[in-house]
Amino acid sequence: MQAVMSPEDMMAFLETVFPQVRGEFLVEEMDGVNTVVRLLVGEKHLRPGGTISGPSMFGLADVTAYVATMARIGKEPLTVTTNCSLDFMRKPVSGKDLLAKARLLKLGRSLSVTDILIYSEGMAEPVARANMTYAIPPKRG
Amino acid sequence: MQAVMSPEDMMAFLETVFPQVRGEFLVEEMDGVNTVVRLLVGEKHLRPGGTISGPSMFGLADVTAYVATMARIGKEPLTVTTNCSLDFMRKPVSGKDLLAKARLLKLGRSLSVTDILIYSEGMAEPVARANMTYAIPPKRG
Amino acid sequence: MQAVMSPEDMMAFLETVFPQVRGEFLVEEMDGVNTVVRLLVGEKHLRPGGTISGPSMFGLADVTAYVATMARIGKEPLTVTTNCSLDFMRKPVSGKDLLAKARLLKLGRSLSVTDILIYSEGMAEPVARANMTYAIPPKRG
Amino acid sequence: MQAVMSPEDMMAFLETVFPQVRGEFLVEEMDGVNTVVRLLVGEKHLRPGGTISGPSMFGLADVTAYVATMARIGKEPLTVTTNCSLDFMRKPVSGKDLLAKARLLKLGRSLSVTDILIYSEGMAEPVARANMTYAIPPKRG
Repeated sequence: MQAVMSPEDMMAFLETVFPQVRGEFLVEEMDGVNTVVRLLVGEKHLRPGGTISGPSMFGLADVTAYVATMARIGKEPLTVTTNCSLDFMRKPVSGKDLLAKARLLKLGRSLSVTDILIYSEGMAEPVARANMTYAIPPKRG
Repeated sequence: MQAVMSPEDMMAFLETVFPQVRGEFLVEEMDGVNTVVRLLVGEKHLRPGGTISGPSMFGLADVTAYVATMARIGKEPLTVTTNCSLDFMRKPVSGKDLLAKARLLKLGRSLSVTDILIYSEGMAEPVARANMTYAIPPKRG
Repeated sequence: MQAVMSPEDMMAFLETVFPQVRGEFLVEEMDGVNTVVRLLVGEKHLRPGGTISGPSMFGLADVTAYVATMARIGKEPLTVTTNCSLDFMRKPVSGKDLLAKARLLKLGRSLSVTDILIYSEGMAEPVARANMTYAIPPKRG
Repeated sequence: MQAVMSPEDMMAFLETVFPQVRGEFLVEEMDGVNTVVRLLVGEKHLRPGGTISGPSMFGLADVTAYVATMARIGKEPLTVTTNCSLDFMRKPVSGKDLLAKARLLKLGRSLSVTDILIYSEGMAEPVARANMTYAIPPKRG
């Protein structure tokens, strides 16, 4: 399996479709099945006590599944999240980036399903797990 | 059933524990079972095309379940989200606030479960549904 | 809103497509939005201690969402479950039937989303909640 | 990591606590982190067309997460499922057993979280994914 574009192309595409999150995410790996995205953790992602907010972790899982899907089908900005489930399992390490490691489990004509584990950089056990379903728009004939 | 504090007390508590989201949420109803929280939609919640970002909807569902739980057990800042599932069903209406209408389905000693429907203000059909589980810390004896 | 067939037609259809579960389920209400299905609890659904098995509750939620969807689109045996999430919240009452009360939250061209609360007959608080997504096959033109 | 009992002890325990499912499941691997359980597919698990029923797949995921948890904490029959989410991704192969391959992601004092992929024997791509949360009863002091 191989991605249909490079991580650099993907980053440029993400910054066009999600300009609000520019500078927050870094696509580190992307081979068509496995995808790794880094959340560059900053002040805006933190909660008192140094933990990382739930919406920041949701956002990381969501972007990672989007990247995993686009890596195979190409640039389809109308691809939208339809379902997700998350388990928050451990407190992230204060001051560390988060790494989302994803595996594309299914790519059908109309749906993709991605499994994601989120780690604090340097920590062996995941802080969260997620699965995301994306709806892929029908091809114009 | 009755809430153990007023919506005003809850708002003051939220702004203490989540100072980053000050001014984003408004607790509109809170009776111990049913809870309504408004997301005051601003520029930071939007995506190109005027839609509201997934992390903003996740954040609204999360705060609403937190409020629904605190309304019964009182101020327990160490209560944490352990699990959630969301379905994104319709595009939110551009320029409208979101209203999360929640029902506390279970309040056990160690877990609460809340069901949430999210509406664009003035729209009859929900834009999203969510369920959130919170872990409640053990009482100190 | 109105259902496109009667509960009796639906029962006959269910017994054709799922002959294995004949006599287990009873469609009690079905108006196109709200659906109530009864699980006639028997020996095969029980676990030691008189509680009802998880697969029996999953099966009830699944059939109820199927009925809620068919009530609007008509008989489409190829409609399949793609996603579900369940919370098990209370122990069912021994020797009582289960009632699943469902609301069809979304009926799109390719997906339906149904929210379900499951009650032991006569009990005020739900024993479980579920949401189910069904994929609807494309119409043949 | 190591399991606190052998697969044979686990099988004997399962047949005591779930006598209804005797002969349906086979614990194939169990090392304290990774667990493999086989569903010996028979007539009762099938739907018309040779596919395997949703409740059968739910039941397999549920038993597998239970085994994965007991493998570490020992025999705790009061451990109960509190939450699950499932994605059904492909049609199982007719006439083949199902294999559930699980990883225990978290074992806390009161909750375990297990990730599961379900395969038709001999098929490279998973037919379903699931995650299950179990509540572990407090230790008697």
